[in-house]
Amino acid sequence: MNEKCGVAAVASRTKLGENLYVTLAALQHRGQEAAGIAFYDADGEEIKSFKGLGMVDGVFKNFDFSTVNGSRGIGHVYYSIAISVPENAQPALFHTGVGDIAVGHNGIITNAEELKKELMEKGHHFVQGSEEESFAYMIADFMKEHGFENAVKSAMRKMKGSYAFVLMHDERVFGIRDPLGIRPLILGKIEDGYVIASESVAIDALGGEIIRDVMPGEMIEITEDGYRTYELINSKERAHCFFEYVYFARADSIIDGKEIYKVRQRLGEILAEEQPVDADVVIPIPDSGRAHAYGFARASGLPLEEGLMKNRYIARTFIMPKNIREKLIQLKVNPVKSAVKGRRVVIVDDSIVRGTTMRKIVNLLRKYGAKEVHVRIASPPIIAPCYFGIDMTTREQLIASYSSVEEIRKKINADSLGYISIDGLTRAIGMDKNQLCLGCVTGKYPVKVDGEDTRFQERIEKWK
Amino acid sequence: MNEKCGVAAVASRTKLGENLYVTLAALQHRGQEAAGIAFYDADGEEIKSFKGLGMVDGVFKNFDFSTVNGSRGIGHVYYSIAISVPENAQPALFHTGVGDIAVGHNGIITNAEELKKELMEKGHHFVQGSEEESFAYMIADFMKEHGFENAVKSAMRKMKGSYAFVLMHDERVFGIRDPLGIRPLILGKIEDGYVIASESVAIDALGGEIIRDVMPGEMIEITEDGYRTYELINSKERAHCFFEYVYFARADSIIDGKEIYKVRQRLGEILAEEQPVDADVVIPIPDSGRAHAYGFARASGLPLEEGLMKNRYIARTFIMPKNIREKLIQLKVNPVKSAVKGRRVVIVDDSIVRGTTMRKIVNLLRKYGAKEVHVRIASPPIIAPCYFGIDMTTREQLIASYSSVEEIRKKINADSLGYISIDGLTRAIGMDKNQLCLGCVTGKYPVKVDGEDTRFQERIEKWK
Amino acid sequence: MNEKCGVAAVASRTKLGENLYVTLAALQHRGQEAAGIAFYDADGEEIKSFKGLGMVDGVFKNFDFSTVNGSRGIGHVYYSIAISVPENAQPALFHTGVGDIAVGHNGIITNAEELKKELMEKGHHFVQGSEEESFAYMIADFMKEHGFENAVKSAMRKMKGSYAFVLMHDERVFGIRDPLGIRPLILGKIEDGYVIASESVAIDALGGEIIRDVMPGEMIEITEDGYRTYELINSKERAHCFFEYVYFARADSIIDGKEIYKVRQRLGEILAEEQPVDADVVIPIPDSGRAHAYGFARASGLPLEEGLMKNRYIARTFIMPKNIREKLIQLKVNPVKSAVKGRRVVIVDDSIVRGTTMRKIVNLLRKYGAKEVHVRIASPPIIAPCYFGIDMTTREQLIASYSSVEEIRKKINADSLGYISIDGLTRAIGMDKNQLCLGCVTGKYPVKVDGEDTRFQERIEKWK
Amino acid sequence: MNEKCGVAAVASRTKLGENLYVTLAALQHRGQEAAGIAFYDADGEEIKSFKGLGMVDGVFKNFDFSTVNGSRGIGHVYYSIAISVPENAQPALFHTGVGDIAVGHNGIITNAEELKKELMEKGHHFVQGSEEESFAYMIADFMKEHGFENAVKSAMRKMKGSYAFVLMHDERVFGIRDPLGIRPLILGKIEDGYVIASESVAIDALGGEIIRDVMPGEMIEITEDGYRTYELINSKERAHCFFEYVYFARADSIIDGKEIYKVRQRLGEILAEEQPVDADVVIPIPDSGRAHAYGFARASGLPLEEGLMKNRYIARTFIMPKNIREKLIQLKVNPVKSAVKGRRVVIVDDSIVRGTTMRKIVNLLRKYGAKEVHVRIASPPIIAPCYFGIDMTTREQLIASYSSVEEIRKKINADSLGYISIDGLTRAIGMDKNQLCLGCVTGKYPVKVDGEDTRFQERIEKWK
Repeated sequence: MNEKCGVAAVASRTKLGENLYVTLAALQHRGQEAAGIAFYDADGEEIKSFKGLGMVDGVFKNFDFSTVNGSRGIGHVYYSIAISVPENAQPALFHTGVGDIAVGHNGIITNAEELKKELMEKGHHFVQGSEEESFAYMIADFMKEHGFENAVKSAMRKMKGSYAFVLMHDERVFGIRDPLGIRPLILGKIEDGYVIASESVAIDALGGEIIRDVMPGEMIEITEDGYRTYELINSKERAHCFFEYVYFARADSIIDGKEIYKVRQRLGEILAEEQPVDADVVIPIPDSGRAHAYGFARASGLPLEEGLMKNRYIARTFIMPKNIREKLIQLKVNPVKSAVKGRRVVIVDDSIVRGTTMRKIVNLLRKYGAKEVHVRIASPPIIAPCYFGIDMTTREQLIASYSSVEEIRKKINADSLGYISIDGLTRAIGMDKNQLCLGCVTGKYPVKVDGEDTRFQERIEKWK
Repeated sequence: MNEKCGVAAVASRTKLGENLYVTLAALQHRGQEAAGIAFYDADGEEIKSFKGLGMVDGVFKNFDFSTVNGSRGIGHVYYSIAISVPENAQPALFHTGVGDIAVGHNGIITNAEELKKELMEKGHHFVQGSEEESFAYMIADFMKEHGFENAVKSAMRKMKGSYAFVLMHDERVFGIRDPLGIRPLILGKIEDGYVIASESVAIDALGGEIIRDVMPGEMIEITEDGYRTYELINSKERAHCFFEYVYFARADSIIDGKEIYKVRQRLGEILAEEQPVDADVVIPIPDSGRAHAYGFARASGLPLEEGLMKNRYIARTFIMPKNIREKLIQLKVNPVKSAVKGRRVVIVDDSIVRGTTMRKIVNLLRKYGAKEVHVRIASPPIIAPCYFGIDMTTREQLIASYSSVEEIRKKINADSLGYISIDGLTRAIGMDKNQLCLGCVTGKYPVKVDGEDTRFQERIEKWK
Repeated sequence: MNEKCGVAAVASRTKLGENLYVTLAALQHRGQEAAGIAFYDADGEEIKSFKGLGMVDGVFKNFDFSTVNGSRGIGHVYYSIAISVPENAQPALFHTGVGDIAVGHNGIITNAEELKKELMEKGHHFVQGSEEESFAYMIADFMKEHGFENAVKSAMRKMKGSYAFVLMHDERVFGIRDPLGIRPLILGKIEDGYVIASESVAIDALGGEIIRDVMPGEMIEITEDGYRTYELINSKERAHCFFEYVYFARADSIIDGKEIYKVRQRLGEILAEEQPVDADVVIPIPDSGRAHAYGFARASGLPLEEGLMKNRYIARTFIMPKNIREKLIQLKVNPVKSAVKGRRVVIVDDSIVRGTTMRKIVNLLRKYGAKEVHVRIASPPIIAPCYFGIDMTTREQLIASYSSVEEIRKKINADSLGYISIDGLTRAIGMDKNQLCLGCVTGKYPVKVDGEDTRFQERIEKWK
Repeated sequence: MNEKCGVAAVASRTKLGENLYVTLAALQHRGQEAAGIAFYDADGEEIKSFKGLGMVDGVFKNFDFSTVNGSRGIGHVYYSIAISVPENAQPALFHTGVGDIAVGHNGIITNAEELKKELMEKGHHFVQGSEEESFAYMIADFMKEHGFENAVKSAMRKMKGSYAFVLMHDERVFGIRDPLGIRPLILGKIEDGYVIASESVAIDALGGEIIRDVMPGEMIEITEDGYRTYELINSKERAHCFFEYVYFARADSIIDGKEIYKVRQRLGEILAEEQPVDADVVIPIPDSGRAHAYGFARASGLPLEEGLMKNRYIARTFIMPKNIREKLIQLKVNPVKSAVKGRRVVIVDDSIVRGTTMRKIVNLLRKYGAKEVHVRIASPPIIAPCYFGIDMTTREQLIASYSSVEEIRKKINADSLGYISIDGLTRAIGMDKNQLCLGCVTGKYPVKVDGEDTRFQERIEKWK
């Protein structure tokens, strides 16, 4: 499971290129497949872009930062298995009769095909056929007569789905958040300018300070000297993605007023109350389950041990020879023997997708002498796909979409298995159910998705 | 001086990918900066493309040819100092409301900016801002109501300049030549299909046979089973680029019925008649001046010697350490001592651009004992830039644009210097003056170019 | 500060290449500059090697594992700023009159220059001039007359310093540990064979089981069916490097019977007793100080928080643009605001070398509202260089070599600073002072080092 | 068929690194697999080396030439299919008790295994096991007692085979040629120093002047100020490799007083006399047969045409997709139609090895309308392998080792086939039979090769 993309917009009197680089490095966890920037070239009076496949440091290894001579730009990190050609890297850049437009996008437009068809029928032609292209074309079409602000508003009215956009129109730079606030976007002040980014850690990394979240439906323009807000869609609804809190965002980020780290600890605490267990020690799955495990240990009174050690050099990009790839869980995560031997162990993680890795870890703990292994999960069972930007495996691979909790327990070979409840989840985050997107754990989506509607009601009842 | 680009279109029942690869390898001399192919994917019912920076073998090193499952495609090799990003490689691919369009282009549209502006005003948006994008958009706009054939015709009416296009519209594949026939394009039959390419050597390389040149103003569609002609612009005018004959095309190519090798020999023969010299030996500049030198030697009765040897490993792409880059002509071309010593030498080349290399060669021959060095050039003095696809240096760098022949002779330190006349040139090619583009040697262009018109008349008179 | 190198030897009936790969991946933390393997090629009746610069996955990306047709081999990961040429990667391979010899080495031979000079005087010639070359030549020289076992024994008598060697002589494979046991080396059983490695995590990763440590002065030979011990030097002395316990080894390793994780927790506990502090929260420096902080928190009764978050993508190999490289501590480590704000914070780490990073972290915590910042270090002050395999900065850069604890406290801007005592350190490890190498914290080395002897006595008295 | 290696030694007051680079670029035709230099580092008082796999420009792309601070060095280009690891690149560098030794080698020591065994028995150990290592060790062993000059002499006495060595001993630099002068080596004067190289073109490229060939059995030492000769082996015998004249050396080189270009023309002239033909046109195989064809045309009075055009971008290193690799001769060499059609053609080349390429070319000429195709070869039939540095295919692949001329003619589908005689060959070179190595065309070798001796007498008789 991986978050698709991180975005950043910077207006700074000096070091624009370096500042964009730093924001992207801080958001690297949101996408490692491609990275890029677009910036206004004051000399050429046009937007230029530089992008490539790979991690931020690789893409910019030979980049000449002195070529970034302006003070406004946007950046993007990309996650996708599908991206194979550099052309698809973002920001996407378009030259139109009403100026240059550059777009960086985090999220998914669910009616993208429809919008594209409509634009094609209107006579537009597509190079990438991407959602960003549709967005830019809708803006450019409307702008001529109605102005930029109304053009963006009009495009937002048409688009369904989730989006945090960073957007350039010639030398102007903007951040835009979808009307439900599904994906995060935050505004900050830095030494000689302003920044908008997917997460507050990008502001931190620049030594800046958080001003506030971009509001759902809002567009914010930043300059070196200030920012200006455009309330394009007066939205009262909220549907913040709960997975940002549980797993995706960095623990040191603050999203919509909630500090991720604290939320995760509370998830662990509530999990301990809802799913208590008689055991000797709490062990986090590194690094994803650590904050949850702290909370679980605190609330349960059980001691915490770093009983599983991660090999920090086996990254997602690690290339493993084919014939050893499958069974080497222990090369990635290895038990601390003294923490495990002869003990009743509780392991805490953020979620279970397919269950295969968890089964391997449970068996590993047993091999090293764990008397009992109890699994506690800081999110409700994932029973339905995400349509708004999380790259989950297909429904068939979501174990909880076709198995009961007891069935899952057996499959992962645990002595007990407990998930946090949806109620516990919302309490931990500190938001009302209606303020969150709970699509993947309820099957009910905040935005209409073809063929999904209420299909899962029955199943959901079943697990209650 | 370098030719910008080579194009090829192939329809073949089998091995489409391999066949496109071979055509591009055969046309590699027309562009070494980038290479790419586009092909119709029968399964996906769309056009796909694969391209990259570098020479053909490098770009396709890891390409899986088995992914080319269809029978129609186009290919392109690119020459440009300016290309820095893979996005600019061709073929360019567009997704429109009336189908996918892929374009490969050799030539220059002189009113490209105007067309682009017009299309932008009509509401179109550009990703690359390229001439190919304009061409594709004009076609797509017009096609809906008037059909593909009329759409291409309409676009050709609007475009000024030179072009040999290979074009795909969904599964259909075409070759198009500008109404003056400035750039070459030829049709051939291969074992299980048909091919259109910039030069006949691509047909040869596939083991095929030349059918005929694509006519100026004509579009030809090829399939695996045959070809069909569309006379889109009934053009009587001709303006074939004479430099294809003198230098750019491969000597084993046949363009517009003329075999390049034979033309070059005749150029040498006529040059010997027009600019006779009392000398001992004729030496070609390898490899560009060899065929001309053969003709010169034959007509003059002087013996021919390969008196200058080329280091075949010092290619254009050879990376030379900075502080030795300038003076190392001798690493590239080295005299055969016995051929030079004590002799009165005639060296024959196709053209002089800046004169710096020629001066070095003359001095080198003197150093090794040449008693006299006479320079004979198989093209008239280049006094004006090319606007139709030849990457000449700027006018300031064309020595003949500001120096008389005698001044050039002094600069290159030759005992005598003789250029072929325009009349001799046209006789050698075997065409009438009116059938050739002689813009760069007369200053009079076959297509109106802003600010160029008759500006050079005066100067031309001067050199006569 | 970085450990130089990790070694492994494997004898396995199947999958030798893959098994060596896995051991190296498990030991990757001991060296990321180069990696390599040597293995006996049964067909060619010789030892072959494959090695390259970079991390394990990069070096073996295109390696054909099927070429490893034998059942015995050794592997090596290398750490060194100095290595610039692949030739220096290990294992080093030598062809001698008494067979092929391959060597992988972790440690430093302090009299290497002397031995090399001696061998040169005897008429030997060096290709790399390395310690491994000297070792191999000494063995080969002596072997002819006295046999392999005696040859190794003789070489060990001559070598001073630290070493854990993996060694091949034709098809035989061995592990050797220096007489003081400075560097670790451990023996394990895997499914179809045996393994010797720097750390037990390599055995774990292969799904194997620890048998025991290689003893100081011992050589162990492994085959697919068993192992055989050679007590080459009957050593009673011990000088295990204490830094393996404090920092270098992976926490899930067991070295000389001590589990690293447990030792680190005890270090934290004893540190809390020796250097108590009145504070609100304990925060580990990730990831190096985590286990120590757990112990500190437990013993002090203070709550533990993951108050500093590490950017997992900013690895040591991360290439940062020059002009932003210096000040970006916050891109690497970022505070969790709620854990810090308004609190009296204790941060726990394993050591202080120069003090510059610690100062930045203290200031960062203050910036985010920490009321007080107390620093606790789980090792005594490092006052002298290491001569046995740890790549410390030069003495001038060791802040504790010229500053008192109070001076360091001021420099790092902490409210208090406390180091564990040498006595506390040895108690935590559970060994006697005489069993450990404490050279870098006492200035007294277990092996004579020219010019070092007692030089630090005075200074040490001062800090007591 | 490819020449193994080129060597160069330079002593120059300035720009040593650049000068070595230029010599290697000029000798690139002698080896494209690897390149390297070794130079005396005056600061470090040692020899340093830099080398890598690939062509000269690739290997030195990122090399910092300013690090070459001395005035003496050697360079090497390598040809070998076998080289797979950078360690095998040359110059080879050794650190010995009597100083540093660096060696670059062109040739083959036929008793290398014997010498190596002997050195191993004496107690020496080998890292690469190469001939260069044996040579260096023999020198170092003997030098201590007898001095450098005698040591080299002693080594030369022991080595059998062919060699042109460039050699460094600490800051001194030498060139050495085997007692029969099999491989070429020449001495030159450059602006601020001296140079020794495999071919005179390297001297040309530096703008220098030839002094003379290094004599068989001679060692020459060069400094910035002069050179000194050591007649180490007083050799009266000569066995210059005739293939250097026929094919390997560059046409603009002068070897042992003979200009290659002139020799090749004479070969063509004599060939025309010995093997006359009634035909219409002479066509060279580009580029190898061009000079021979010039001579043939001149002597026969037939016109010369460049009737076969080479695709200059299909280099030996060109990577062709597998399934098109075999049949694409026409991508590499393509006929000029007018030169071929309806004509009786003579094609001239330097040699025939397997005959497969020649057969394809003959068929290609017939396809394009050649009435007759006559093949003339400027060397005698190759009936036996080369043991002295030419990488011929195995004997089984030498078509002339098992086929009569008439059989070969049939196989290559020619109307007639004629080889130059051995007598004609020696006359063209201008040397006596006894001055040349004619091993591969006579089966009689100038140096004893195990199992070769007179084995071929019978067969040779047969072809006479």
